[in-house]
Amino acid sequence: MRIFGIDPGSLRTGYGCVESDGSRHRLIACGTIAVPRDASFPDKLLAIHDGLHALLARHRPDCVAVEDVFHARNVRSALLLGHARGAALLAATRAGVPVASYTPAEIKHAVVGYGRAEKRQVQSMVKLLLGLDAPPSPHDVADALAVAICHLHSRSPVEAPRAGARGARVVHSWRQYRPARQKA
Amino acid sequence: MRIFGIDPGSLRTGYGCVESDGSRHRLIACGTIAVPRDASFPDKLLAIHDGLHALLARHRPDCVAVEDVFHARNVRSALLLGHARGAALLAATRAGVPVASYTPAEIKHAVVGYGRAEKRQVQSMVKLLLGLDAPPSPHDVADALAVAICHLHSRSPVEAPRAGARGARVVHSWRQYRPARQKA
Repeated sequence: MRIFGIDPGSLRTGYGCVESDGSRHRLIACGTIAVPRDASFPDKLLAIHDGLHALLARHRPDCVAVEDVFHARNVRSALLLGHARGAALLAATRAGVPVASYTPAEIKHAVVGYGRAEKRQVQSMVKLLLGLDAPPSPHDVADALAVAICHLHSRSPVEAPRAGARGARVVHSWRQYRPARQKA
Repeated sequence: MRIFGIDPGSLRTGYGCVESDGSRHRLIACGTIAVPRDASFPDKLLAIHDGLHALLARHRPDCVAVEDVFHARNVRSALLLGHARGAALLAATRAGVPVASYTPAEIKHAVVGYGRAEKRQVQSMVKLLLGLDAPPSPHDVADALAVAICHLHSRSPVEAPRAGARGARVVHSWRQYRPARQKA
């Protein structure tokens, strides 16, 4: 089973791909996608989406795992994070990969065994579980690997994505507003 | 010049396409994209993205206009709105359509002539400027048409989207963490 963890951010998105045979975990790849600071905001989202899309095509995971977010410093940073997380979820869903999400407490509990563990404890356990030389950094990479390991340990059932457009109900309301002279 | 306005929302996204010869505006199409309430959150984002993608392919606008958002009821709704707005921006950028964004005050000023105008005044002016039978509703449709008209009146220069992946710097850091036995 191969899991692709993502830690989305508007400037830097961490990713980590982990494989497991059920007892042992193995690091497949990890790293960050950094978007150019001078790019327009829509271009930044496209960079996150396209960067992840290429990585998902390359590593072909069975599932994408992301952290559930409920908190942010303020409304402004929540908006920015929401955009970046939306771009990441779309990259997964458009690639047909199911998405599982976990709260920060669930991730800490699954990786360290304690829901209020500190960042450093999570990093040390990620290093130990994957048999790495050093704790992964920056923290975006460690967080992405942690949520991937969390999914391996909890194995929540995930729904495969459905074709989006089929689910959406598009209401074209323009006919009712056309002035009389334009009506057919 | 043909402008496609979007008012993104996590449950319902309004759209409105307006054409202008410089002096007169004409309604091309408007409506809403409603996502199924029982869909998973990633599927909802895919529905917004795919719905808008199909509409942009059909109406081929010169530019997409969206409202800039700085405020939200709370962090939770800011996160939800950010995801939906991210899906909308990605649909435009992936279709190669430039995106212009305007603050609520800029939109009110451009449509009504007064930055603190009320919702109803905006709806009345949209009706008047497009020569419609009735003020457009629901408010998502009126807001989408208003931001499209705002762009026609202000004509801010917009940057064409760049290919995203070329802008992103993907750092693959996994080699440095591989334990000795796994290194090539």
